[in-house]
Amino acid sequence: MYVSHLECPRCTQIYDYGKRIQICTCGSPLLVRYDLDRVAAALNKNEMCGRPASLWRYRELLPVSDDAHIVSLGEGLTPLVRAPQLGHRFGFKNLFIKDEGIIPTGTFKARGAAVGVSCAREAGVDTLAMPTNGNAGGAWAAYCAAAGIRCVIVMPRDAPLINTKEIAVTGADLFLVDGLISDAGRIVGRAVAQHGWFDASTLKEPFRIEGKKTMGYEIAEQMGWRVPDVIIYPTGGGVGIIGIFKALQELQAMGWIGPKMPRLVAVQASGCAPIVSAYEARARTSEFWEGAATCAFGITVPKALGDFLVLEAVYASHGCAVAVTDDAILDAQAQIAMAEGNFVCPEGAATFAAARQLLAQGWIQPEEEVVLLNTGTGLKYPQTVEAEPVLLSPGDDLPV
Amino acid sequence: MYVSHLECPRCTQIYDYGKRIQICTCGSPLLVRYDLDRVAAALNKNEMCGRPASLWRYRELLPVSDDAHIVSLGEGLTPLVRAPQLGHRFGFKNLFIKDEGIIPTGTFKARGAAVGVSCAREAGVDTLAMPTNGNAGGAWAAYCAAAGIRCVIVMPRDAPLINTKEIAVTGADLFLVDGLISDAGRIVGRAVAQHGWFDASTLKEPFRIEGKKTMGYEIAEQMGWRVPDVIIYPTGGGVGIIGIFKALQELQAMGWIGPKMPRLVAVQASGCAPIVSAYEARARTSEFWEGAATCAFGITVPKALGDFLVLEAVYASHGCAVAVTDDAILDAQAQIAMAEGNFVCPEGAATFAAARQLLAQGWIQPEEEVVLLNTGTGLKYPQTVEAEPVLLSPGDDLPV
Repeated sequence: MYVSHLECPRCTQIYDYGKRIQICTCGSPLLVRYDLDRVAAALNKNEMCGRPASLWRYRELLPVSDDAHIVSLGEGLTPLVRAPQLGHRFGFKNLFIKDEGIIPTGTFKARGAAVGVSCAREAGVDTLAMPTNGNAGGAWAAYCAAAGIRCVIVMPRDAPLINTKEIAVTGADLFLVDGLISDAGRIVGRAVAQHGWFDASTLKEPFRIEGKKTMGYEIAEQMGWRVPDVIIYPTGGGVGIIGIFKALQELQAMGWIGPKMPRLVAVQASGCAPIVSAYEARARTSEFWEGAATCAFGITVPKALGDFLVLEAVYASHGCAVAVTDDAILDAQAQIAMAEGNFVCPEGAATFAAARQLLAQGWIQPEEEVVLLNTGTGLKYPQTVEAEPVLLSPGDDLPV
Repeated sequence: MYVSHLECPRCTQIYDYGKRIQICTCGSPLLVRYDLDRVAAALNKNEMCGRPASLWRYRELLPVSDDAHIVSLGEGLTPLVRAPQLGHRFGFKNLFIKDEGIIPTGTFKARGAAVGVSCAREAGVDTLAMPTNGNAGGAWAAYCAAAGIRCVIVMPRDAPLINTKEIAVTGADLFLVDGLISDAGRIVGRAVAQHGWFDASTLKEPFRIEGKKTMGYEIAEQMGWRVPDVIIYPTGGGVGIIGIFKALQELQAMGWIGPKMPRLVAVQASGCAPIVSAYEARARTSEFWEGAATCAFGITVPKALGDFLVLEAVYASHGCAVAVTDDAILDAQAQIAMAEGNFVCPEGAATFAAARQLLAQGWIQPEEEVVLLNTGTGLKYPQTVEAEPVLLSPGDDLPV
């Protein structure tokens, strides 16, 4: 185990490593810190090829003490694929898709759940609770089932139907709320206080981010231990972009990549864009977004606990934050599928809509290496595609 | 390129290698044969770790001449995970799930499409057509989009809605038929004859099976270049089980695994079980199954072109064929999700229902290594799960 301590990124308070810990006394999320010199001495980046084809290949950089506590469904090492046709049609010479649809439960949420639930199991948690827009609930319910941990989930009633089904099939306790994820969060907050459950809300425990950060390790490893110019990320709670930034800083500290940091772009839907508003005002934190609504349901987060960390990653990497309309998102989804075959989720499609905006503005140059982070499979969003196929009888021929 | 020729497994006729070829003049599917001695000399099984984390790691054993023709979305090297809790609850000491839900398009059909479409591109095909129960259509439409090949798909109207959506989003030409896949096949047959399109129907071209066989390579590699005692496979068209048998024979011929062959089990739904009927009669071919109906829609195949190859694989490996009811399938789906977190498709769940039957009959011993082949993600089958979550208002507390 190479964890040295937990650290508050807001008030800099230090905590001993412990797995039942939630947030800092100041209210901020906590970050896990490692003895990176010792990791760099123990691990050689050129000897990764014998490692598992999952995020557990970065075992030394993950906060689980005992292998016996690891809960894994084979998550991670998702494809980083080139998108040459899409790039050619829209003016990008080096466009890539990091496809997090190819993972257990169909979204990148599996990474946070795999590490978070492994840590919860190691800590002896018997019940955990969380609010979710759907995909995190699906992931945590699955890993909790495998870990034998009771999982209580509260989700907006407008969440995709498939999330209800994937959570129910694991035997988790599922509740819907006639409201947003912020309403679900308040219900969970009262319940964990009352029952002493572990609170697995976004960034209210420090281990989910450790799972998500592995996307950053993988992008660097898959590019040959270097980084692209730009990474575009759909941002709701923001754990992924915080995690990628943290991962790349860790790789830099270990000397595994050079000093170059990709410009990190936080994309939001124009119907729920608190981070973008804050960025445009050059603020350090965001304001609660009233009346949030978008087809990219997974990023309908009116106010993220880690907003200041998202904004810090954006500012420090010389990135930006961009809002895109639902129309642009749905058009991007179709363009990606028609050009490259990837059926991406609307949140993932938002990254390409943002890339097009930034290229048009000259913020991205045509030859730059741009990685679109597709956070999940479009298979979970059938309602985003319209189809009216012709119906034939068995004796019919195909129309010419 | 290590392909030596194409061979008819029924009449033994030999064909030169060519990519526009369809079936033998005798009507049988063709199999691709390799110069395995030359592959074994060129490739060392202990040096696979630097290879891509996809089925293209077995490049020398795939029938594509030029890398430039490869169409890949990152398919293959799916997880082979232990299922210890499920095994413990039901009396299996060494139970594994090969999880083909963790792949582009969410099902194992991506393997056949990746290799099949790459070969079609290499052959200069501009339009291909196929009948499908849904998942193959989704996969071939995606890879055709990436390859710039026009894709014409005919599918039963009762196929899952998600298949309609995933096909439509790629821009493929989709038609529904008020009938079964056999009716769709007849419509496609007339169209390809009329228009000169490439016929990508199951086993009417020899390359889909080459993609599917990589499941066999992976199981052997992931177990340390040895095989389990039993592999249980949900069987519709049967390409997967034929492919796995072929792959293991190839590995044996190269000396990469020993002479032990796993017992291959073909599972069908009791509502459509032509292979099981043939097996019970010790027949070499199957009869058309009238009135086919099951919740495991992907294996609703009344008569498979490769039935004799499926039966040969079963007989030669000392395997068997088993039918399971829809009730047993849906129960197995829930048991797997509750014990291990994997949300498998009903076809995949059928393998565990079969395993339980075979264990109860003494055909499987408790300590034997049993691999369940889950052919796809349950996310494509929301209708197989019932969920009635409690609805709360924002001010409510969770019920005790």
